[in-house]
Amino acid sequence: MIKVGIVGGTGYTGVELLRILANHPQVKVEVITSRSEEGVHVADMFPNLRGRYDLRYSIPSVEVLASCDVVFFATPHGVAMSMAPELLERGVKVIDLGADFRIRDLEVWSQWYGMEHTAPDLAAQAVYGLPEINREQIQNAQLIACPGCYPTATQLGYFPLLENKLIDHRRLIADCKSGVSGGGRGAKVGMLMCETSESMMAYGVPGHRHLPEIKQGLADVAERPVHLTFVPHLTPMIRGIHATLYGVLKDPVDHDLQAMFEARYANEPFVDVMPAGSHPQTRSAKGSNMCRISVHRPQNDDTVVVLSVIDNLVKGAAGQAVQNMNIMFDLAETSGLETVALMP
Amino acid sequence: MIKVGIVGGTGYTGVELLRILANHPQVKVEVITSRSEEGVHVADMFPNLRGRYDLRYSIPSVEVLASCDVVFFATPHGVAMSMAPELLERGVKVIDLGADFRIRDLEVWSQWYGMEHTAPDLAAQAVYGLPEINREQIQNAQLIACPGCYPTATQLGYFPLLENKLIDHRRLIADCKSGVSGGGRGAKVGMLMCETSESMMAYGVPGHRHLPEIKQGLADVAERPVHLTFVPHLTPMIRGIHATLYGVLKDPVDHDLQAMFEARYANEPFVDVMPAGSHPQTRSAKGSNMCRISVHRPQNDDTVVVLSVIDNLVKGAAGQAVQNMNIMFDLAETSGLETVALMP
Amino acid sequence: MIKVGIVGGTGYTGVELLRILANHPQVKVEVITSRSEEGVHVADMFPNLRGRYDLRYSIPSVEVLASCDVVFFATPHGVAMSMAPELLERGVKVIDLGADFRIRDLEVWSQWYGMEHTAPDLAAQAVYGLPEINREQIQNAQLIACPGCYPTATQLGYFPLLENKLIDHRRLIADCKSGVSGGGRGAKVGMLMCETSESMMAYGVPGHRHLPEIKQGLADVAERPVHLTFVPHLTPMIRGIHATLYGVLKDPVDHDLQAMFEARYANEPFVDVMPAGSHPQTRSAKGSNMCRISVHRPQNDDTVVVLSVIDNLVKGAAGQAVQNMNIMFDLAETSGLETVALMP
Amino acid sequence: MIKVGIVGGTGYTGVELLRILANHPQVKVEVITSRSEEGVHVADMFPNLRGRYDLRYSIPSVEVLASCDVVFFATPHGVAMSMAPELLERGVKVIDLGADFRIRDLEVWSQWYGMEHTAPDLAAQAVYGLPEINREQIQNAQLIACPGCYPTATQLGYFPLLENKLIDHRRLIADCKSGVSGGGRGAKVGMLMCETSESMMAYGVPGHRHLPEIKQGLADVAERPVHLTFVPHLTPMIRGIHATLYGVLKDPVDHDLQAMFEARYANEPFVDVMPAGSHPQTRSAKGSNMCRISVHRPQNDDTVVVLSVIDNLVKGAAGQAVQNMNIMFDLAETSGLETVALMP
Repeated sequence: MIKVGIVGGTGYTGVELLRILANHPQVKVEVITSRSEEGVHVADMFPNLRGRYDLRYSIPSVEVLASCDVVFFATPHGVAMSMAPELLERGVKVIDLGADFRIRDLEVWSQWYGMEHTAPDLAAQAVYGLPEINREQIQNAQLIACPGCYPTATQLGYFPLLENKLIDHRRLIADCKSGVSGGGRGAKVGMLMCETSESMMAYGVPGHRHLPEIKQGLADVAERPVHLTFVPHLTPMIRGIHATLYGVLKDPVDHDLQAMFEARYANEPFVDVMPAGSHPQTRSAKGSNMCRISVHRPQNDDTVVVLSVIDNLVKGAAGQAVQNMNIMFDLAETSGLETVALMP
Repeated sequence: MIKVGIVGGTGYTGVELLRILANHPQVKVEVITSRSEEGVHVADMFPNLRGRYDLRYSIPSVEVLASCDVVFFATPHGVAMSMAPELLERGVKVIDLGADFRIRDLEVWSQWYGMEHTAPDLAAQAVYGLPEINREQIQNAQLIACPGCYPTATQLGYFPLLENKLIDHRRLIADCKSGVSGGGRGAKVGMLMCETSESMMAYGVPGHRHLPEIKQGLADVAERPVHLTFVPHLTPMIRGIHATLYGVLKDPVDHDLQAMFEARYANEPFVDVMPAGSHPQTRSAKGSNMCRISVHRPQNDDTVVVLSVIDNLVKGAAGQAVQNMNIMFDLAETSGLETVALMP
Repeated sequence: MIKVGIVGGTGYTGVELLRILANHPQVKVEVITSRSEEGVHVADMFPNLRGRYDLRYSIPSVEVLASCDVVFFATPHGVAMSMAPELLERGVKVIDLGADFRIRDLEVWSQWYGMEHTAPDLAAQAVYGLPEINREQIQNAQLIACPGCYPTATQLGYFPLLENKLIDHRRLIADCKSGVSGGGRGAKVGMLMCETSESMMAYGVPGHRHLPEIKQGLADVAERPVHLTFVPHLTPMIRGIHATLYGVLKDPVDHDLQAMFEARYANEPFVDVMPAGSHPQTRSAKGSNMCRISVHRPQNDDTVVVLSVIDNLVKGAAGQAVQNMNIMFDLAETSGLETVALMP
Repeated sequence: MIKVGIVGGTGYTGVELLRILANHPQVKVEVITSRSEEGVHVADMFPNLRGRYDLRYSIPSVEVLASCDVVFFATPHGVAMSMAPELLERGVKVIDLGADFRIRDLEVWSQWYGMEHTAPDLAAQAVYGLPEINREQIQNAQLIACPGCYPTATQLGYFPLLENKLIDHRRLIADCKSGVSGGGRGAKVGMLMCETSESMMAYGVPGHRHLPEIKQGLADVAERPVHLTFVPHLTPMIRGIHATLYGVLKDPVDHDLQAMFEARYANEPFVDVMPAGSHPQTRSAKGSNMCRISVHRPQNDDTVVVLSVIDNLVKGAAGQAVQNMNIMFDLAETSGLETVALMP
């Protein structure tokens, strides 16, 4: 059994890791940390886990975590980069669900995250954990930077178009809608049910931390810097991201976009290209690691519209982290991730 | 008291007219029709109206409706155009909340609505009831085509930019999110709570009936045909439309967009330009006739993002219809429409 | 115009007072206080109020509040009893939406609210502001203790049965369901949308602060102490209380319960006895000051079931407070309270 | 592999069977029927199943179903009793998720279900599939009547109290709250999101079909007829039942109710007695087969309050059906049912 540690186990990505790993046949969670909940049983925090774990929160300690084969960081930015170096030195693999190692240009990182990066060497080694573009590097990685939720949905939607140089890299618009679990489990007035339910709003229009991450990923496949307008919206549901992606065809001739998308993802276990004309619902991915995508060209005009949906806590966080772990440890990539989405 | 008739009083726009008119000081609803609910008291259908009306549904009859000063049609397309001619002849003013008179090009109308137009003369006379652009014509109109919900939010958001010729008319993208009440009160599996709650989806990407209506309105102010990509989304909330509107500045110099928007709507009682940097929530308009707008230029790049929110049943339907009536009968434009949005 | 002050204007009952009073024709809100938001415009906190008030939060000061004719306290317990004495001395009427003056037995009060009562004389004078039982005393009151939300729905449902001595006063069960706005606007993890949406739970089963208040009110009409089991539930909606009330008929002969309920509330503007066989929905009261009630006797057995619904923020708080004010100032009791519930 | 057939595969219990069985290691779904969707791929109806099944709806046929080892009926009442006889004759085991075989007294059955029972012999043989009371009979059963959702939550909550003769069998009150998926997937106005969201209502107070079923089950363990008042409520969430159960202690001395409940369910894999003082949330069971229970005695008075929560589609329907199948086929009782509830 692979010994797993989780740093930061009281937030939504932490409990989601516990939910997924509870049914993973090759894994045992040995350590879970929380400064505020030391000594508390995980099932007392999260009753859905009753009977599934005999595990209490402990204070994060490199000593203890070093006994694990792999440590997940489900923490705010800044935590992973402070603890990862020592763990890696001791031969522990590290998968960061936070933002510390997602952006290669550390000046850009500092500008968006408001602090100095304290582990620049690791940032250079870290592999961006999006299997659909980096599977081989992930296999040999010691340190994974798990993509953000918006970046996952957005990149998977844009890849076929940009890889094939079909759309103008200067005219990208990602209009994204996220459920409120993306806002985390912190006690904030703005995330109360009274404030978020029965309402829709954009936020972060002047700039959101996922913008540079998405641009980096798209630039890599476009092989040039891209212009992207990214507008996230807070949507009155718990889980799910719906990315509506716009691109302008450089050459508005006839393209078989459907075939191109299907070919691109034919061997991907967690990307499902829907039939032509489909409109995927976020709930078709709820609780599962699937990304469902459809591609449209309205009125056969020069604008392409891609619809890409994921569960932000699964393919957008904990599920993708486990997918990375499976690849790193040479397990079946779908191990522990066979859950069917909950519908209705 | 102005005598009001309502044709089609069992849907959500019908009951919303009743809710608004219950507190309108210069109006009395005399007739309300429904083929299926003949004889039923309105308060037995809609208990929120108990004690407010002494009114039963009757079979629609021109004879009876002709005793009214104004008749609202809250009906599917096709109904208003069949009854309006006779009512207008008898001197009754007509306000159609449906789609029969919204589009001037009747070939386009037929193509999107799948039937022949049976009152082409009236279509030519009808005034498009968006007071923010047509107030003077509305004052003297006999027949009003009330705008659709998406078209209201979208046009109000784009007007200042297009009137000032600031953005490229060939690169318009309207990514719109609507609450489920926009889908009506019909018994459809797809609108069950189990199907729509806790999920987000786009629909009608290949083409939606509001597309030609929006294009017509934007073309009028742009003074040339526009290219528009319009993607509506079904959002898990009852009321509200959030339009996220994208435009590309023709000349990316410094513009005081905030001042331009504030000036454009300075005298409008139902358009509220929010302070710079704002992100309006749909709930800030819930139950009220307000449209709240903010304008952004992310990273000072060449893309402008306008956020425009309304309550689809009020400013997007029944409230706007009453606003039109107020203008037509020379009442205070806000009469009956002073409701403050319900928050939380 | 009656000059109004509001102490504690940033919570949900505070903003609800502002919403209601915005359209009250005989009232002007002159002062609103908040320690944390001093200087902030009310419309910057609550955008639904934009254009309706020219009012900023100020630090609470008896000096300033004394210029008002009436002061509402929308505060946690303990605040009103500290400021009310001086205000009353200066001739200002006080309406407390909190719990300070609801319970006559101050030992009981202290036990449930965990502090000493500092104004016992006032507690003795305060009138319990439930107009349906205390209208005359309210007319001459200087100090009103506005009932809690659960107590309002529960007492109105039980009154006809207990006044007529029909049910066993030792076997009362009130199973109540409240929307999450009852939990207030404080930043608490347990009130996040992710924690409360899509779930139902009971809380406070061992004891809830509204229990002694309900028992006091029911004992008054029963003319003896009552046994009551009260179980509140947190329901995944923003507004609304649904009280399901059980009683055991002392004499299980034929009773015309429907007629008894209708007669009891025939002249009440804000209690609506629904037709026999009805099941009122909380949404039929949403945003309005109505309490809707139906009474059932399933299978003609000896158990009576009363269903009583209100909007917890209106009839359960701010609306009832305004109703009290109207009575105290000899205004039409419905002034400012004519809003029709928002449906859908 | 056990060959499974499902009759009635387009409703919510049908698709839930497919979701659960997709990950059941010893089972293969061979046939699924639907008259209206013949020929349609299950994944085209329910995209969460894409990639998990190669299965199309077929017209129900005993011929075809007879090739299965077990057939589940996820159908309205009346269907199972017409097809079960022939299937049983051919040696196929039958598990009815509907109501045809739940009630032993067929006169009572006819009265509540409005039709004659056409298979009275089978009704006499059928085993009521509540493993926590009937495990042994289930092992040898050929025909299982799966309990209703309310009856499951209610009986599991009352069993320990009634088996121990602690509470008065004449004074039972079950106040139950169900998510809207209990209302099925039919196109009904009353189940639209606009009608059910943001509202709470009781329904069926004069009488609900689950009443006689619950009474039968409680009478069995009480060993005498019981008086029960049962009030179901429609709750604005998709999944979940919260049963709040009231009983009156016959002898109000000190009882260790907590220990009694824990002992009763110590060996039950799907009943979780929560720690003393707990208030289970329905979401702690969402998507899982768990029933979570807590027991309270407020103010140490003579009333006991039991809180019992399940997912109505799992332990209240499809999950319980699979649990029955596991027992009948001597599989591990938890096989396919290890899913952890989705939180948040």
